[in-house]
Formats: sequence, C-alpha cells, structure tokens
Amino acid sequence: MKVGVFDSGLGGLGTVSALARLRPNLDIIYFGDTARLPYGTRSREAVRRYAAQDAAFLLKKGVDAILIACGTASSAALPDLSDELSVPVYGVVRPAAREAVQTTQNRKIGVLGTQGTIASGSYERAIRALMPEAQITAVACPLLVPFVENGEAGSDLCRMALMRYLEAPKKAGCDTLLLGCTHYPLLKDDILALWPEVKLIDASAALARDFAEKCPDEGEGRVELFTSDFSQGFFELAERFLPGGRAHFAEEKVAVETWN
Amino acid sequence: MKVGVFDSGLGGLGTVSALARLRPNLDIIYFGDTARLPYGTRSREAVRRYAAQDAAFLLKKGVDAILIACGTASSAALPDLSDELSVPVYGVVRPAAREAVQTTQNRKIGVLGTQGTIASGSYERAIRALMPEAQITAVACPLLVPFVENGEAGSDLCRMALMRYLEAPKKAGCDTLLLGCTHYPLLKDDILALWPEVKLIDASAALARDFAEKCPDEGEGRVELFTSDFSQGFFELAERFLPGGRAHFAEEKVAVETWN
Repeated sequence: MKVGVFDSGLGGLGTVSALARLRPNLDIIYFGDTARLPYGTRSREAVRRYAAQDAAFLLKKGVDAILIACGTASSAALPDLSDELSVPVYGVVRPAAREAVQTTQNRKIGVLGTQGTIASGSYERAIRALMPEAQITAVACPLLVPFVENGEAGSDLCRMALMRYLEAPKKAGCDTLLLGCTHYPLLKDDILALWPEVKLIDASAALARDFAEKCPDEGEGRVELFTSDFSQGFFELAERFLPGGRAHFAEEKVAVETWN
Repeated sequence: MKVGVFDSGLGGLGTVSALARLRPNLDIIYFGDTARLPYGTRSREAVRRYAAQDAAFLLKKGVDAILIACGTASSAALPDLSDELSVPVYGVVRPAAREAVQTTQNRKIGVLGTQGTIASGSYERAIRALMPEAQITAVACPLLVPFVENGEAGSDLCRMALMRYLEAPKKAGCDTLLLGCTHYPLLKDDILALWPEVKLIDASAALARDFAEKCPDEGEGRVELFTSDFSQGFFELAERFLPGGRAHFAEEKVAVETWN
C-alpha cells in the first residue's frame, strides 16, 4: 500500500516517523511545500488551493490514501478534499481531538495552533462533538512555526514566547494540551519545562496511530521525500522531525519538484 | 509615468510611501506576494522564479519601470531581471549601500538582512565597490520578518531578539547600520532604544530617493495595490508601512490576483 503524506513544510515528517514505526512495510510518499510555507498565516482560500495542489501531486505518484499532516490544511481543506478526491483523505484534527478527550481527567483542554487553525475553530468542534461539556482554551501561536523553522527550540526567546502562549490554558486549569500544528512537537521539552504536569497530545503522532489502525502493513517499506523548495538548513530540520532521516534522505534522494 | 513596485509582502509599501511623497504625481502599481512570503528563507532559485512572476504581473499592467522593494529579491534576482525585461529595473541594494557609505564616519558598517540576503553577500559587494576599505559586519536576522508580520514590533520578545542580532555590529564599533529588508524600518524605534547613537539606513526609503532623482513627476498620482493573498490583519499591517494607507486602500479597492 502506498500512502501519501503532505504538509506545508517538514513538520509532517513527524507523522511519517510515527507511521513507519507502526507499519514498517508501508510505502510512504511525502510532499513538503517548503516553497510556500507557512500556511498558518494565509487566507483560507490560499490554504485550500495549496492543499489541493499538494494532494494532486501525491495522486500523480499513485498513492492509495492521503494524510494531511498539517493542522492548518486539515482545518481549511479536509472536507473539500474528501469530496473531490478518489482516495480516502485523513487529517490531524479528529484523531488529535479523540486522544485529547481520552486523556483529560478534568475536561479542560488547551489547544495551540496557527492563526488559521485557531480561527477556523476546527479542534474545538471536533472536541465538542466527542465531549460536549469540554472547556476549551484555544490559543493562536503565530511565532512558533518561525521559531522551529529557525532552530530556536530550547532558546530563551522561544521559552519567553511560550510563557505568553501557555498563560491562558494554564490559568484555565487545563490538564491536557493539544499541539495542533505538526511543528510543535519539537517544542515539547520547552513546554514541559514551563508546565511539567500537563499532558501533551501530539497531533502528528495521533494521525499516524489512527491511520495505522485502519491500514494493512503491506508494501516494500520505501519512503520517498519530495519538496517544492530545497533551502538552507533543510537536512538539519528534516533530521529533527525524523530521527535517522538523514540516512533515508541523502541529498541525492530528495527530489525537488515545483509547479509555482 | 507608471511605476511598478513589488515585494514579498507589504514591506515595500515603505518605498511607495516615500516615493509618493517625493513624486506625488507618479502613478504607482504595487504588488505584494503575500501568498508566498517570506522570501528570506527560500532558496535562491525559488526567489528568482517568484521575482520573475511578480515582475511579469507588473509588466502586464503596463508599467514603465520596476522597483524591487525587497532586499532578498533584489539580492537574488536583480541582474537577471535587468537582462530579461524591456523596462528598467531598480533594487534596494545599491541605493542603500550608497547612503551607508555617505553616512559612516569610521567606515564600519553593520548590515541586517534575511538569511537569503546575507548569504548572497550583495550588500557587502555593493558597499566594497564604493568603499573598498569598509569594515562590514553582516547579520542574518531570520526572526525579524515574522516579528513584524505578527505585530511584535515594540514587544519584549522583539527587543530580546534584536539584542542578539545587534551584538556583533555593536562590538565591531559600527557607526552605521543598514536595514537591508523592507520590513525592518518598523523596528527602528526598537533598534534605537537598544543602540541610540547608531545611524540607521532605510533601504526602502533609499530606493525611493534614488529613483525619484531619475524620474519626472508626471502622471495622475494614482496608487493601486495588488496582492496574491488577502489574509487576516492585512490592513493593520498595510497601515503601519503606509501611514494613511487605509484611505488609499479601502477594502473594495484591494485587488487580489493570484496565479499560484
């Protein structure tokens, strides 16, 4: 079975990493739209258009299913893509909401996401569908993607921004914090340093677990990586999301295919 | 005379603002590629491709000259565009270098720019061409565009990042600091708060002054704004770069034209 995974950048490699551990024989084709990230600050229309192009790219590679490993694109484009495409499409929102609901003890859940994701209300809707009485504190965190992209995980600056973003969910007494963007798991240590008792939900891993339950472990275990731009620091970032990724994705194996 | 101005986003409105003050009768057509910003972290190839598309868009609108009001695109694409296009093309690098050389007393010049700009060495080359003995301290500042885009000018976070970026040029004893990205003038107050005695060179204003010397003040004084995406916070940001811009660019007058 050949599975396509896309994200605005390299964050979705977290989903690839988790999925390859759970279903090592799957063939996975990844597309990272590094020429147009970040998606989180674009209009909904732009994100939909980009997501449709990303999915079309994967379909041409012959994938049997598509995983949207991007909180913003899942929030903006999932229902449309599901209607339009001939293969099943899965996003991060529902699996992550399910894990958050299973995890919380006090029904108080925090959600961190990009501006686009939080403005869409997608996680809130998905959580409320499962737990109508949930108290949800959602925070748009526009600086976190640039921080991760620029190697700021662990820096004083990054901690300072997180202190600001965590204030509201902490104050609300949340016991569970949903990381609604696939970049954010790289900030887990920073978040836990500031808030050790909170339970973190990793949306990219939740998608991988959810999909693994549905699919047979069949294929040749090949992982291919495509991006729309190949910029400075690419491998450093890829390696952070996909430990051991450098072995998979030696320079000569990364294909840059562009249409824009 | 009809002048086209483009930038990766809205930073180039600083050039429009300065040019419209100096040559109020010029007709100006602005294109901000807000669907694909930031350019500063993309590969050189991607920036060149985008710049060529931005210029082609303006040419179709019938402009007589093109100003690249973007440090990254000027650094990556100016010589190529000059060769390829039928109208004259001007960038921010040479005018800003000239003002920096005219300003410095001790021949020690700091340069702040995006990763792409600093990696290209464009400002250093332009400064050395005019002042071979100049001591130049160039710093890539990947967080400053996200800070400006997300309204962080004046925040503690922004000051903290600037302290880090200003350390090397301060230590080197620079008396002049070239702001090599059209977003950075919005951080002037923050920079001067940390370094009151430094002389700042604004690349977007330098381009406007340089071009104003070359062109007649002819036209109907119309300013038109086009962008490739119309996202949340658009007018707030436009207003910051172009005081009074809201009057020019009421919602119904902003045309979003896209090709990607």
